[in-house]
Order: sequence, then C-alpha cells, then structure tokens
Amino acid sequence: MTISIDAVATKSGESALSQAEPCVIVIFGATGDLTKRKLMPALCHLARQGALAEATLIIGVDREPIGTEDFRALMQSAVREAKGAQSFDADAWRQFAQKLDYFACDLKEPGHYAGLAARIQDLNGGALGNRLYYCATPPMLVAPIIDGIGQSGLADETPGWARIIIEKPFGRDLTSAQALSDTIARVFLEHQVYRIDHYLGKETVQNILVFRFGNALFEPVWNRNHIDYVEITAAETLGIGHRGGYYEEAGALRDMVTNHLMQLLALIAMEPPIAFDADAVRDKKIQVWRTIKPMAATEVAAKTVRGQYGTGRIESNVVPGYREEPSVASDSNTETYVAAEFRIENWRWAGVPFYLRTGKRLAQGVTELAVHFKRPPQPLFADRTELIEPNVIVLRIHPNEGIDISFDAKQPGVEMRTANVRMDFCYQQAFNMRIPEAYETLLLDGLCGDATLFTRRDGVEAQWRLIDPILAAWRQQPPESFPNYAAGSEGPKTADELLARNGHQWRLLNTRVASTHQTGAKKSL
Amino acid sequence: MTISIDAVATKSGESALSQAEPCVIVIFGATGDLTKRKLMPALCHLARQGALAEATLIIGVDREPIGTEDFRALMQSAVREAKGAQSFDADAWRQFAQKLDYFACDLKEPGHYAGLAARIQDLNGGALGNRLYYCATPPMLVAPIIDGIGQSGLADETPGWARIIIEKPFGRDLTSAQALSDTIARVFLEHQVYRIDHYLGKETVQNILVFRFGNALFEPVWNRNHIDYVEITAAETLGIGHRGGYYEEAGALRDMVTNHLMQLLALIAMEPPIAFDADAVRDKKIQVWRTIKPMAATEVAAKTVRGQYGTGRIESNVVPGYREEPSVASDSNTETYVAAEFRIENWRWAGVPFYLRTGKRLAQGVTELAVHFKRPPQPLFADRTELIEPNVIVLRIHPNEGIDISFDAKQPGVEMRTANVRMDFCYQQAFNMRIPEAYETLLLDGLCGDATLFTRRDGVEAQWRLIDPILAAWRQQPPESFPNYAAGSEGPKTADELLARNGHQWRLLNTRVASTHQTGAKKSL
Repeated sequence: MTISIDAVATKSGESALSQAEPCVIVIFGATGDLTKRKLMPALCHLARQGALAEATLIIGVDREPIGTEDFRALMQSAVREAKGAQSFDADAWRQFAQKLDYFACDLKEPGHYAGLAARIQDLNGGALGNRLYYCATPPMLVAPIIDGIGQSGLADETPGWARIIIEKPFGRDLTSAQALSDTIARVFLEHQVYRIDHYLGKETVQNILVFRFGNALFEPVWNRNHIDYVEITAAETLGIGHRGGYYEEAGALRDMVTNHLMQLLALIAMEPPIAFDADAVRDKKIQVWRTIKPMAATEVAAKTVRGQYGTGRIESNVVPGYREEPSVASDSNTETYVAAEFRIENWRWAGVPFYLRTGKRLAQGVTELAVHFKRPPQPLFADRTELIEPNVIVLRIHPNEGIDISFDAKQPGVEMRTANVRMDFCYQQAFNMRIPEAYETLLLDGLCGDATLFTRRDGVEAQWRLIDPILAAWRQQPPESFPNYAAGSEGPKTADELLARNGHQWRLLNTRVASTHQTGAKKSL
Repeated sequence: MTISIDAVATKSGESALSQAEPCVIVIFGATGDLTKRKLMPALCHLARQGALAEATLIIGVDREPIGTEDFRALMQSAVREAKGAQSFDADAWRQFAQKLDYFACDLKEPGHYAGLAARIQDLNGGALGNRLYYCATPPMLVAPIIDGIGQSGLADETPGWARIIIEKPFGRDLTSAQALSDTIARVFLEHQVYRIDHYLGKETVQNILVFRFGNALFEPVWNRNHIDYVEITAAETLGIGHRGGYYEEAGALRDMVTNHLMQLLALIAMEPPIAFDADAVRDKKIQVWRTIKPMAATEVAAKTVRGQYGTGRIESNVVPGYREEPSVASDSNTETYVAAEFRIENWRWAGVPFYLRTGKRLAQGVTELAVHFKRPPQPLFADRTELIEPNVIVLRIHPNEGIDISFDAKQPGVEMRTANVRMDFCYQQAFNMRIPEAYETLLLDGLCGDATLFTRRDGVEAQWRLIDPILAAWRQQPPESFPNYAAGSEGPKTADELLARNGHQWRLLNTRVASTHQTGAKKSL
C-alpha cells in the first residue's frame, strides 16, 4: 500500500482516485439480488470515477441462458433503479456497459468452468491475467464454485493475480466455518481470500480507528482507568420481511453479532496496530476476540439475553409478531434480539463490561458505540459524586453519522449549577461530500489487493469460539417466554436487568434528541 | 456556602435564586459611569429576580448636590438606556426605586462620613446593620473613602457585617499595590475585602473550572505529557476611544495582562481546589502565579513583545494610530499590545509554554483559551507525524461563547484520507437562557459573602511580582519601532517570532470560520 498525499480534489468534490490494475472481474450469481442492488452500481460508480483501468472486464456468470446484450440490459435497469432514474447517467452507462460480458453455466458443475477459463482468455487477449472473483451467490454454491475454479486452473497466480471475495455467512458455527475455510484453502492461499463484511466498508466504521489513533486526545483515556463501560448497539425497526426462511435458520446472534457487532467491538477495543495495513490491523482485532474468554455453559444465562418480538406498533402502525411473519414457524424459538456482556481481560480493559445488543423491530433504528466514562473523583460542583452525569462519547454509525461528547458545563445564571450538554460532530455536515457506498470501498480494496477491511480465517474462527458456547447453551435451554418484547419497544426487560446488575443502563433508543440535564447546584444563599 | 440541588426553574427559564440577607448597599461614585452602566442595571435585575431581600436599601453617595428623587430619576434614565427602552419594565422600576436613597458628600473629606453613618442608621431603623460598600470611583478616591469609612465606624462588624468591593486597578506595580492593600487593611480585615475583576463573573470564565473539574474526560490529559502549549488571547478591534488619559498611564500590560489574562492563566492551569469555595479556589490560583519564576531583566526581551498600533483599517474604515488618538502624546511609547511567554515549572506543566497576548485595534475581537495537544506518536494514517494536525481544545469566552475540539476524522471516500474537523458546543444555543451580566453574578456574590470570584491580597501581589520585572525592563529599554503594527492586523511580527522559536504558532484572529483541512492520505494504488 502506498501513500499519496498530493491527491487532488475533482470538480465533484471527491478526491481523484488512483487506478486499479487492469483485470477481469468475474461475478458468480450475476443475475442475483446482490449483483443488481450493490455490485453493479458500485462498479459503475468506480468506473465513472476513473478507478477502473480501461482494459478492465466484468464477466457475469450465472445459470440463466441469456446473452451478453440481455445481461447488459438487465444490469442497466438494475443500476438505473439502484441510483434512481434522475442520477442515472446514460452516457456513462454506455461506456461502462462495454466492459460487461456474460457467461451462462451451471455453477454447481465444476466441469463447466473450463469454458469460463476459455472465455476469459478469449476476451483477454489469450491470457488469464489478473482475476477478481466475487461469490454473490447463496452459501450452498460457494463450495462448488471454489471447486470449479480450482479444477479449471482459474486460481493460478502465474501469470497475474487471482483473488476471491466471499460473502457472509462464513459458516454457522466453528465446525462449519472451519470446513468452509478448508474448502477454500484447497484452491486458494489465504492471501487470495477476501471475506467481505460490508459493515467494515462503512465510512463511520472506518472512522473509529481514525478517531482513536489519529488523535492524541482520546487514546490516553481509552482504558480501564477512565472508562466505566461500553455499549454497542445495532437496533432496527424493520422486521424480517421476506427473509423468514433464512432468518429461521440464522437468528440474531449469527446474523448480527458474528461479524457486525464483533467487528465494532474489535475496533473500539483493539490495541494500536503496528501499521495501517491488512495483517497489522487484523492481528490486533483478532487479539481482542482471543482475549475474551468463551462463556462457560453456566455463564450464558447470566451474561446473555435473547428475545423475540411480538406484535406491536412501529410508527403507529400495528405490525405482526415474528411468529406471524411469512415462512416462520408459529412456535418458532428463533431469537430476533440478543444482548450480551463480554469482558476483555487484558491490561487495557480488565473490569470494563462491553455490552452488545441488536434486534429487529425495536423502537428506533440506531447503530452506535457509546463509551461511558467514570465520574470525576471529586464532586466539586455537586454535593455528591452520584449527582454528576458522567461523560459519554458516542460514535454514531447510523443515522446522522458522527460523534458526540456529552459533558458538564456551567448552567447560565448567577449561581453555580452544572448541566449535562453535548458537543456534536456531524459527518455529512462537516464534509458536505458524497459518502461512498460500502461496496465501492470494498470492491476497490479487493481490486487493489488491500485486505485490511476483510476478515481473515483466524478471525472468523476466533469469533465462532465466542459464539459457539452461547448457541450450545441456548439449544440446551429453549426460551420460555417468547415473544418477550413488543415490536416498537426497547427490547426485553431482561436486557435492562443484565446491565442493572452492574449498576449500568442502556441508552434509550427512542430518545435521540439532545437534552440538557441539570445535575447539581451550588452556591445558593 | 450551601448547596441547593432542588432549585426550581422560574417561568422565565431562569432558576429561582435564593435571597441575600437584608442589607444596606452603599455606592461611592453613585453618579458615575460604572454605577449607571453596570451596577444599577445589575441591582435592578437582581431585585426583579427576587434575589434582594425586601428590606434592602441602596444609598448612592457622591459629591453632586442632588436629592433622592433627582438621583432616582437619574438612575431610571440610566437603567432605561442600559437595558434598552423596550425591555425596561416601568412597574418593576417603580418598586425598585423605593430602595434608592442619595447622600451628597465630598468623598475626599473623611469628616463627612459621620453624616453617612447617621443617614444609614436613620434609614435602617437605628442600626447600621449589614453593609456592602462599593467603590465605583476613580482610584485616587479609594484611600479617602476607606479612611472615611474607618473614622466613622462604618467598617465595624458588630452588629451586622461590612464588606467593601474595590474596582481595578489594584495598584500600578507591586509597591503601590502593597500600599493600597495596607490602606485597606488599616480599616478592613481581608475577609471583608472583595477586589472585583468583572472578567471572573463571566459565565464562560467560570465554566473553565466546570469543564476541567466537572468532567472526567479532560483532566487526565491536562498536563505536560499530552499538552504542547497553551494560547490565551484577548484581542479587541476597538482603539482606546476617549480613555487616552488613563491609557497613557496604564498600557496594555497593566490594563489587561494583570488580572484579566493572569486570571485566565490561573484557571486553565490550576490544580483541583480542595473544595469549590473562596479560599480553596484562590489558594490554587495563587499557587500557579507563585510557581512562575519572575523574568530576569535579561529574559524580558526574549519572552515578551510589546506593540503599538499605527493607522490602519478596521472593517474597511481607516482609523488613526495610537499616537493620533485624543489625549495621547505624539511620541507616546505606551504599549497597546503585549505578548508574553510564561512557564509554570511544576509537575503538571514543566516544559509547556503558556503564551498570552492582548491588544487594541487587532483584526478581530476574540477572547479565548486554546489548548494545543501533542501529535499522536504514531503516524498511522499519514506518512509522517508532522502531517497530522494536532488536537486543539478552544474555550471561547467571546464571541460565540462555547467550546470546540478539533480532531482528525476520516474524509469520506473509498481511500483512507484524514481531515481536521471540529466538534462544537455553543453556550447560548445549548441553554437558550439569558446569560447574566458579570456584575449581577459578582454583586450577588458580594451580598452573599462568597469571595470565590474576587481577588485576594496575596493574589494581587503574586501577579505584580511577575509584571514588575517586565515593566522595569521595558522602562530601561524604550521601544524603537513604535508604531509596529497596523490597526486591523494580527499584531506585531515579533509576536509571531516569539512562538516560532518554539515551533509554535498563534491561531489566526481573522479566520474564525470552521474549515476542514486535509492532513494526509493513505491507501492509494
């Protein structure tokens, strides 16, 4: 990775990008939802920004027996829909569409991949060249695709490089994750494998590291001496929609805690990496997960809470409970909510609880990390320390991306009273620039061979080592009270009890408004 | 001092005040400017808020041979002018005016004060009762007033208390300050003496202590390990107006650095007081001044800069230079600008320069404290540490009272670039409450016997011990280059050199606008 400090801003206010090397991008599952909604719009935008080399080719692969022109038309309407008709640029599309090709094949048939190899060489002047594969397919197709690539020599790196981007889930427990990684490892070396979690491509998620290590102000207090506890929240108001079939098998723990919340946990807690590069950053993240002791079976009940939504109201509309959703069993025990307490028992964090929570159909859609500081030791402006509102730094991922710090200030008046106020930074307002889609960032990283924001095999496994005991204990002891929270609520009451045991409290989801809070008073007559 | 945490907000949004004990407020210099513009409006507002006891009396004393009704009429028009005709409340005034009385006397004649004593007893049911004296007169009258009070027994504290508020200047060097304090001490005990500096009554000045000691987030980094340097600025665009006579004798060093800037320096640098009370807070402030080693005569040239404005432009109007101002000598060597570097050689601050600057006719009116942090030790997101913009916490006293923190954040885009952004807290916006005038706060404190925001004798003398050597060295070596900065500019060039020697830089006065600044870039191709 090189450093360019002389990047110039383009007319659009976006910085000029350096260009990826020419390569062939092969998308498996090219007529699927992910390709249409995310990958194609992202590639199209990268091309428009000049980030793709002129000679870049994009080959869609899927079983639909269509031709290249059909594929281009299909992608055109997909990109138009994704970007909105108004911001769709027909000229730019025409240029971009020249790069698109389509190859119909049964992805489950390893024998068909020889044809793909021939097509690549054909389009690419006789050579395989650089190749970026993207598995945009359901998980069950990943193994056959890997096999097909392997058997047809498409993973070979001489000449040119070959990389493969794999989508979540990376298994459904430690054993299946290891099996998947073994399958991949039979064909690809680890440095060729890019396990994508689009969360890590989000600007504000990347900003966590800049906030921590790009500033000298916060790192000195970022430890057990000054921090009381940390909350990590990913709350949604949405239900499961038409994904009942998938969700019944997954549940909130696998769907959100693995990877998404675990990644946020690692970013907020990790030690400074020795450099900002793929292995340095991932080493430190994995060390966080490895420092957490997996829960004993007996601990799970005390340290985790699961929930499932019943019927309730979202924005004054009555919505059905989870068990009434399509493709969900009427006695389903799948959790749609998880709260858990983890402890990172190292020099920096020993004694500081990290609380994670995520759920569907909650009061408000909020993704944020809240770092709660201890109270000042001396109650100088209040008569008891307990009356002082502690400082909180909130890193907001969504909505209204930004950072705020709550602190005590003097309340105006001739007497000395303090009040809790907020200092705010809003990402969009500060920069007034287009915030790129996570997939643009991650695709360009893949094209450039930068794996910093992708998950490494040992990282996947370190996470499952923490999740597996919870899954096992939950299986042993089916939930008795499901549904245990109403749609539109703050979640199960037991989640509040989880924190209350340590004298802590979740931030309210449904009060996202700044409020000043009088905390103490002094100097009356 | 007691603590009330159950203060209730009144309809106006201001907290209900407790009431001062009944007393007689005696204002010497009752027909003067300070009384008209500041004291009377402040007392009137306090009365309206219910902070003055019903039985409170206010006796104006001056040499004008007028009656009480004349005095009331004079004060009415003064308060109306100070508050603006629209917010003047005639009913409230009528009620307040009942408290007003006037006593004509030659302030220079100690013999006349027996009459004042008789008047007080007369109005006050035969007793002297509690008395708050206010010297709102030119400095030359302070000694005769003190003598008069002493000779007539008006300083006696049995029964009732007697306090005296004295206005700046507290001498013009150490010797004269000691002489003044000795004069006062012949009549009053130190606990009766309230040396007022209206700066300390300002909300945002008081907020410095709350910011530092009401929060656990900042104090751990408030020291030499994390802070690079501190800037304290009090810049004005105004010239000296009609105060040429006074200013020729005073100069910027006496007028602004003594007390105003020294107080800010003490608040930003002091150790936590053992309690928030008068002696505890003042002890720690004085310890700051005493920890600074007075400059040797040879050091003064290297550590201080003086300046005098020449003609220039303020908001596109040409304004005269200082030597052209009324009542100013055409070859005056009086400084209208001072910059100085002080070092507080204790465990917390050794090695951290504190730069003070103040001046008339500068580019912008700004009073602020800027705490510059060191750079992060590891340039993770830039190729060299020097490219990282260090964190700065700015406590803004004026204008736009508040606090901002500048920090590095990820710039939106698929590549990793950081930019310097600001997190902002605006006092007025956050509270949306009336911010009281400094004199209201300080008068009520005086009435309540709270001397926290007043200067103690040892504090005055500790400051002069730092100022005297500078005055002496400057006298020895008249300035050669006056005028040395243009009206409307950033001040003398030599002030920039003062900081440049340590690799530091003043914040620009004329750029008060938030700007994002790209500081480094990474991860290009």
